[in-house]
Amino acid sequence: MSLSLGEIVAALGGSLEGNPQVTIERLAPLEVAGPQELSFLSNPRYRQQLAASRAACVIVAPALREVALVRGACIVSDDPYAYFARTTQLWKQRHAVPVLAGIHPSAVVDPAAVIDPTASIGPLCVVERGAVIGAGTVLKSRVTVSEGCQIGARCIVHPGVVIGADGFGFAPQQKQWIKIEQLGAVRIGDDVEIGANTCIDRGALQDTVIEDGVKLDNLVQIGHNVRVGQHTAMAGCVGVAGSATIGSHCTIGGGAVVLGHLTLADGVNVSAATVVTHSLNRPGHYTGMFPIDDNAQWEKNAATLKQLHRLRERIKALERGPDAA
Amino acid sequence: MSLSLGEIVAALGGSLEGNPQVTIERLAPLEVAGPQELSFLSNPRYRQQLAASRAACVIVAPALREVALVRGACIVSDDPYAYFARTTQLWKQRHAVPVLAGIHPSAVVDPAAVIDPTASIGPLCVVERGAVIGAGTVLKSRVTVSEGCQIGARCIVHPGVVIGADGFGFAPQQKQWIKIEQLGAVRIGDDVEIGANTCIDRGALQDTVIEDGVKLDNLVQIGHNVRVGQHTAMAGCVGVAGSATIGSHCTIGGGAVVLGHLTLADGVNVSAATVVTHSLNRPGHYTGMFPIDDNAQWEKNAATLKQLHRLRERIKALERGPDAA
Amino acid sequence: MSLSLGEIVAALGGSLEGNPQVTIERLAPLEVAGPQELSFLSNPRYRQQLAASRAACVIVAPALREVALVRGACIVSDDPYAYFARTTQLWKQRHAVPVLAGIHPSAVVDPAAVIDPTASIGPLCVVERGAVIGAGTVLKSRVTVSEGCQIGARCIVHPGVVIGADGFGFAPQQKQWIKIEQLGAVRIGDDVEIGANTCIDRGALQDTVIEDGVKLDNLVQIGHNVRVGQHTAMAGCVGVAGSATIGSHCTIGGGAVVLGHLTLADGVNVSAATVVTHSLNRPGHYTGMFPIDDNAQWEKNAATLKQLHRLRERIKALERGPDAA
Repeated sequence: MSLSLGEIVAALGGSLEGNPQVTIERLAPLEVAGPQELSFLSNPRYRQQLAASRAACVIVAPALREVALVRGACIVSDDPYAYFARTTQLWKQRHAVPVLAGIHPSAVVDPAAVIDPTASIGPLCVVERGAVIGAGTVLKSRVTVSEGCQIGARCIVHPGVVIGADGFGFAPQQKQWIKIEQLGAVRIGDDVEIGANTCIDRGALQDTVIEDGVKLDNLVQIGHNVRVGQHTAMAGCVGVAGSATIGSHCTIGGGAVVLGHLTLADGVNVSAATVVTHSLNRPGHYTGMFPIDDNAQWEKNAATLKQLHRLRERIKALERGPDAA
Repeated sequence: MSLSLGEIVAALGGSLEGNPQVTIERLAPLEVAGPQELSFLSNPRYRQQLAASRAACVIVAPALREVALVRGACIVSDDPYAYFARTTQLWKQRHAVPVLAGIHPSAVVDPAAVIDPTASIGPLCVVERGAVIGAGTVLKSRVTVSEGCQIGARCIVHPGVVIGADGFGFAPQQKQWIKIEQLGAVRIGDDVEIGANTCIDRGALQDTVIEDGVKLDNLVQIGHNVRVGQHTAMAGCVGVAGSATIGSHCTIGGGAVVLGHLTLADGVNVSAATVVTHSLNRPGHYTGMFPIDDNAQWEKNAATLKQLHRLRERIKALERGPDAA
Repeated sequence: MSLSLGEIVAALGGSLEGNPQVTIERLAPLEVAGPQELSFLSNPRYRQQLAASRAACVIVAPALREVALVRGACIVSDDPYAYFARTTQLWKQRHAVPVLAGIHPSAVVDPAAVIDPTASIGPLCVVERGAVIGAGTVLKSRVTVSEGCQIGARCIVHPGVVIGADGFGFAPQQKQWIKIEQLGAVRIGDDVEIGANTCIDRGALQDTVIEDGVKLDNLVQIGHNVRVGQHTAMAGCVGVAGSATIGSHCTIGGGAVVLGHLTLADGVNVSAATVVTHSLNRPGHYTGMFPIDDNAQWEKNAATLKQLHRLRERIKALERGPDAA
């Protein structure tokens, strides 16, 4: 389980300042890396940690080359974080047992599903009739892909994911709910990653669509008819209600909620735990969360908040002055 | 995969204005429906879309009959949305492969579980000892129904659902947690639908109860000893803490949280992402969420919010005036 | 399914005031317990319910012995709630079919996983290469333990749990996401309980760590590199983002979110639905949630909240008075 610095640079490029025969046993964060470990510095704010690091070698940006050399070996790259990401991929490729293509014997795959021969369907997955799984895509264990849903190429679907359960659609009648059968499906593009126990519902009439390069973390809920644009990323526990349209290159923080039928423009960033209650038509950074405080302070402020509108009236009255009375 | 307008009206009623031999290939939303598609207009606000629609036929309320006829064929129904729901059911019934009754060979069903012969237990489900599954109920793939839990008739349970895991009960002692074994079970009524990866915990001493006609979306958490009244609906990612009692005909928006031991009256509507911190004894619409804003604006307002109680004191002081000093 | 009062006290200690031959058929809450049921009173606030209870016997603290005796039999214990917890354990031990050690034939366990012979691997679980499952630990149905992850002794892992899915790590490059392979694993201590459909991601470079005695409810998300200290408990739907460090003996309320890279001291209590946006370096009780209100009231106050910073400026202006203009 080791690689020399020379092997790493040969595979990934970058400029090595140091002995290519030095052996790296592991990758490690800067503050804990030891003399057989490779680390990286992507954020110049942490340059003080650089001097103190005991790492065998550090991946740095050109601007930090001089500082890094004082300490020891470095690999200079224009984008140290991306270089680090590729190093993790190299590490895995060289050391992990490769994922085998094919269908695990414990998976339940309908004969009328279309599985690319280079795809991997893991243990105890369920792939229903008419589902399509693209080249190189990996369904880890215990994934369900329901009838007629499509997944593109090179996707990674983590355990427990449910693709294509019925969207939540009911018409009220006489104080009961009449089920609206969900006649659409789910279409997922290429290079999408879907976290554990995340759910993507099938559309009511048309398909729910996840475009290329989207990354969804664990326990995310995507309602029916939603469209998520290319390379958008959502952190854990996000909920997107039905028929929302989310642009490309958005980021949605953990636990945020997007209400139904809204549109988010390309390049929108929503903070964690924020509730999107109206469409966001311009790129930007949006937030709405109650600031955390000592419980006693919070109680006072929360009680006052329930009178805020009246406080505003009192300020208005003060501004009008006693003569206005 | 088609039905004539005549067949639809013969099956579902309503009054057809148009040629019964026209063939419908699909159901579609009003704004995208083409000349072989059937659509509906439930909200009169969208009547302008009606005139522009290219749909073969539109389901409308009596009040919109004249407007609809100018455009082309229509089906007149007192409740177009419910009619549309029944049309999706007809569509599915005529075109989908029916769900087969019986137990999929990959499911693990305890011999001491009681499965109605008309129920369907899908692939890789687990049904434990003493569980009861009613007539016509469908467990899709990868559902767990734990020991002694009961599900009524005509329920739909989506993939990944866990019914009857232990409630979260621990007694603190000497800074550790002593497990309170959960000796109750879960009882689910008839016509309940439960979304993917939703969890309903077993009761501590008595049963957790989900009454008839309840609809739960995906990734909902129902704690131990909870009771959910008839025909209540909860959207995705809702959490209901232990021993809460929720009335009939309530709606709980996505991501809302109901704290433990509270009571919600019949007919309570809770907005998305709202935290219910005290019992709600009257029907009504309740909300509590921080409004979303540009991040910079939010930061200013959130900082001020942490001083809100003191601002109120300052307003009081201003109201008392300089003489009071 | 019954035990005599004498058997209970013989097994668990405490001082019985009453006839040891009385037979108990069930445990029940104080307000519903009948003459064949055992109940408990842990909170002295409910002492009025004590007098009215029809329970065969009530577990009470020494201070309530006199009050309890007026009513009928009691078991006196220094810690009635812990005594009650142990009674539920006794009940289960005497009446439930014991969990069998061993691997269910439907589970998919890699030959290179290490399963203690006293552990129980339930139906349709997946245990990957290099995983380690300790003595007495129970994986209920449909649990995934991924490659190289370790679980200690006497843990309970509920259905649908995913341990060791990839953490959510991507480096941005040219408006796309480059995957950071997650080379760490998950290490879980002894006596940990993990609720249904909860996810604990593997670390990026080092391990995600859950220490001894931690209790996690259902649908909790633990990001990569997180460390959760001993005997900390988290209620349902909590999300902990990557690289957060949570101390020992903390409690995190349902639906709360802890942002990434933060540190929570030992003994921190976070209220439900609260977002932790900065490190909490002292024990204490912290809260941040928008108070629920009638929707109409909320709308007024939320609208005013978006102008709060300007209101503060107006108060300042009023305080300066007209002379300052």
